[in-house]
Amino acid sequence: MENLVDKSQLLVKLVLNAWDTQNKFLQELISSLTDEQLAGEISPGRNSGTYLLGHLVAVSDALLPLLGFGPLLFPELEEIFLKNPDKSGLQKPEIPQLKLMLQEVNQELAAHFKLADEDEWMSRHMAVSPESFINEPHRNKLNVLISRTNHMANHIGQMTLLR
Amino acid sequence: MENLVDKSQLLVKLVLNAWDTQNKFLQELISSLTDEQLAGEISPGRNSGTYLLGHLVAVSDALLPLLGFGPLLFPELEEIFLKNPDKSGLQKPEIPQLKLMLQEVNQELAAHFKLADEDEWMSRHMAVSPESFINEPHRNKLNVLISRTNHMANHIGQMTLLR
Repeated sequence: MENLVDKSQLLVKLVLNAWDTQNKFLQELISSLTDEQLAGEISPGRNSGTYLLGHLVAVSDALLPLLGFGPLLFPELEEIFLKNPDKSGLQKPEIPQLKLMLQEVNQELAAHFKLADEDEWMSRHMAVSPESFINEPHRNKLNVLISRTNHMANHIGQMTLLR
Repeated sequence: MENLVDKSQLLVKLVLNAWDTQNKFLQELISSLTDEQLAGEISPGRNSGTYLLGHLVAVSDALLPLLGFGPLLFPELEEIFLKNPDKSGLQKPEIPQLKLMLQEVNQELAAHFKLADEDEWMSRHMAVSPESFINEPHRNKLNVLISRTNHMANHIGQMTLLR
C-alpha cells in the first residue's frame, strides 16, 4: 500500500515537473529576446510575441479559479488576450509589465501547487459539476494542468520563431 | 487499496489521453493542408512542414526502442530528420509516404500502449541504467511519453502556421 501511495505521488510529480519545464523554457526564451524581438510577429501577418506572452499569462492566471485556488490576479487580461485576437485594437500592457505578471502568476500557482496533495489533484476542477464528475473522473485538476502544459508548449514553439 | 490502484491507473490514462489528443491534432492538421502547403516553410527561411512531419515521425518511431517495445520501423529517418537539419540536402521521403509512416508508427505504438499496465509505465526507459533508476525513479517510460507529447505540441504550434 505504501508503494501504491508512492506511485500516485510520483505520477503527479511527473506532471508537475513537465509544467515547470515548459515554464522554464518560456522564461529562458523571453529572457533571450529583446523587447523589440518580442513585439515582432512570429511570421508575417501572424500573432505578435506580445500577444502570445499575454495570452499565456492570461491562461495561467485562469488556472487559479479553475483549480479552485482563488480569484484571477489580472482579470483585465481576459478581454485583451483571451476573448479577442491580437489585432483587436485593444491596448495591451507593456512587455516589461507582462513579464512581471507572468512571474506573479507563476509564484502564486507554485505556492498552491506546493500545498496540493494527490487527492486534491485527482479532484474535480471548477468547470465540472459534482454530478458529472462521478462518471467522468478524468475531468480532474491534474488533467487541466496536463492540457495547459501542452497548450504552453504549442505557443512556445511559435514564439521560438521570434529569435 | 483498490482505490489506490484505480488512482494510478487513472493518472496513467490521463497521460495517454494527452498523447492521443496531440496525435489527433497533428492528424487533423495535416489532413487539412494540401501537400503544397505542407511542403512550405512555417515562416520565411525556417523549417518546412515536410521536415517537421518527418521529424515527428522519427521521434515517435524512436519511442519503440526507447520504451523497450522493439526496433525502429523506419531507421532511415534518423539521419534525415533527427541528425540533420531541414536544409541538409539529404533526400526526404515524399509527403504521402511520410503520412503513411506516421500512421504505421502510431498503430505500432498504440498496440504496445494497450498492453502496458501502470507498472510497465513506471519502469525505467532504455536510456537509463537499472543502477541509476534506483535513485531516479522519475526516469520512467511515462515520463518519456509526457516529454514527447510536449515536444509534439511544440511543433504542431509551428505547423499550424502552414495554414
